[in-house]
Amino acid sequence: MPELDLDLTVLRDWYTGLQARIVDALETADGQPFRTDSWTRPQGGGNNNLPPAPLPTEGGDHGSLRSGTHTAAPLGRPGGGGISRLIEEGTLFERGGVNFSHVTGDKLPPSATAHRPELAGRRWEAMGVSLVLHPRNPYCPTAHMNVRCFVALHDTEAPVWWFGGGMDLTPYYGFTEDAQHFHQTCKEALTPFGAEVYPRYKKWCDEYFFLKHRNEARGVGGIFFDDLNEGGTGGHTPFERCYQLMQSVGNSFTAAYLPLLERRRDTPYGERERDFQAYRRGRYVEFNLVWDRGTLFGLQSGGRTESILMSLPPVVKWRYDWHPDAGSDEEKLYTDFLPPRDWV
Amino acid sequence: MPELDLDLTVLRDWYTGLQARIVDALETADGQPFRTDSWTRPQGGGNNNLPPAPLPTEGGDHGSLRSGTHTAAPLGRPGGGGISRLIEEGTLFERGGVNFSHVTGDKLPPSATAHRPELAGRRWEAMGVSLVLHPRNPYCPTAHMNVRCFVALHDTEAPVWWFGGGMDLTPYYGFTEDAQHFHQTCKEALTPFGAEVYPRYKKWCDEYFFLKHRNEARGVGGIFFDDLNEGGTGGHTPFERCYQLMQSVGNSFTAAYLPLLERRRDTPYGERERDFQAYRRGRYVEFNLVWDRGTLFGLQSGGRTESILMSLPPVVKWRYDWHPDAGSDEEKLYTDFLPPRDWV
Repeated sequence: MPELDLDLTVLRDWYTGLQARIVDALETADGQPFRTDSWTRPQGGGNNNLPPAPLPTEGGDHGSLRSGTHTAAPLGRPGGGGISRLIEEGTLFERGGVNFSHVTGDKLPPSATAHRPELAGRRWEAMGVSLVLHPRNPYCPTAHMNVRCFVALHDTEAPVWWFGGGMDLTPYYGFTEDAQHFHQTCKEALTPFGAEVYPRYKKWCDEYFFLKHRNEARGVGGIFFDDLNEGGTGGHTPFERCYQLMQSVGNSFTAAYLPLLERRRDTPYGERERDFQAYRRGRYVEFNLVWDRGTLFGLQSGGRTESILMSLPPVVKWRYDWHPDAGSDEEKLYTDFLPPRDWV
Repeated sequence: MPELDLDLTVLRDWYTGLQARIVDALETADGQPFRTDSWTRPQGGGNNNLPPAPLPTEGGDHGSLRSGTHTAAPLGRPGGGGISRLIEEGTLFERGGVNFSHVTGDKLPPSATAHRPELAGRRWEAMGVSLVLHPRNPYCPTAHMNVRCFVALHDTEAPVWWFGGGMDLTPYYGFTEDAQHFHQTCKEALTPFGAEVYPRYKKWCDEYFFLKHRNEARGVGGIFFDDLNEGGTGGHTPFERCYQLMQSVGNSFTAAYLPLLERRRDTPYGERERDFQAYRRGRYVEFNLVWDRGTLFGLQSGGRTESILMSLPPVVKWRYDWHPDAGSDEEKLYTDFLPPRDWV
């Protein structure tokens, strides 16, 4: 029963609930409250009538992004809004945001449906929660998580929907047990949906979060998936199966990440570690601004810039042709952690 | 006589000579030497056989860039190399580079010649000098200059060439007389080639160096031009006229910029000014990585990353939804200097 499946208020409530639960856990870990900044965009509002970025960070999959270009493609006259929850200069987090957004459009252009031309012209809604957290302690890794859904609606035909999401970890100083815990938690979140799912989404993550201009991974990876709209067994519809899979990913984030912060947050560090962290954060900026489809499409299509760029680190350094000393802990990140490998 | 006009060794000598003259002047101003880093890329070398970025920073105009997309388009099997001259932690310059590059390809794809389809399949050469300088003192503006040429060669037909280039100024604290001097020098460089040239290229610069996602100019502008291959009067061929115009722009850079550094380099500053400089430098990163065609094409098509990213500042900060205090010097940048206006 797709109509029941697609009660979007139920989806919206789940996303806003997830955002609230994650922020509660992060506030407890930090000891300081997150700011709340709600925003709306009236139908037809926004720069040049293009949509806000429904997916403030990685993995936004809209329109021309499918083709890998960064050309902004109007998705009808979109409206919508969101709730940004953010922290800066916290005790544990130097900068971070957990964003919910829900945007709608009245006409899906052909470019938005390259692999589903039959959907052109439909009304659409996109919803998601996306977060990036940059701890201050260089021994604490940066983390990203995103869960989202996209629905193409029709007056007389059944709606077409798909889910996407994932989470990935970006350490500055690598720890095998941290990467293992993060991946093990990702695997446990996906195993109920098939033993083949984690390996597939782990590989997809390695391929997506890769800086081609550096021939370097962003971090130790995690899981990534998109265009999920199939499956369903044991009395579950495909929608139920995909929705539950996405929920399992979102619900697993705090269990995957918070234990690593607790393990590393009190590790002493000095200027050397902070300097390496600032240098490596430059790679995060390069990925998000050069390669990430969601970020670029958002910025180039009238998205809410301050929400989109909550993914950028607070302090970043660039220097020419720098390489870590042989045998240093900094070099180990490049030799032992960034090259994609199996962690579980 | 296009054959004589297109003695590329003459062009190459001029570009390397310009680079040397500019670096000499900058070293004198700074008191510290620039590093020299030469690099070569064998025919067919480079990531996935795509070309290095012939134009390390703004204004690179190659292939699919014309369409505004960021899709890498193979320009045959390119070779080439360059000479990077750079400084970090100098007395005056916190980070900066003056790069020469010369790349060649054996087959211009249709995508590279959208508005000149008849050139598809030709051998090509691209050459240029591009610089970005980030002074340490927040009262000293950041500057960018680029001059370049592109030639499509043919065994039996005349070569087809075009020139591009420009320079623009990005202050952190604005000074009317500085913007006026920079623009006046740009105007004087172009006036010999027609009174209408400066206004046209000034407007082109305002339009190009604009952060659409911020609805904000990068700085106080300057001049920008591309696809220049026409004109010529008084016994001058079109090539002579265009080559001389580009030379005039390149030769005018130190006169446009160095007096501003001498005027501001000893202005006292504190943490407040350094912090604002670091915040504003974030805009420079956003423009170069999100909007600049040359940078993006270079990074996405196998360019030499460390040379391309010499344009990025040494220390950058991002913070959420920040706005300067009413009436502050920081606010004056937004109200009195970034909105495009006539400076001369």
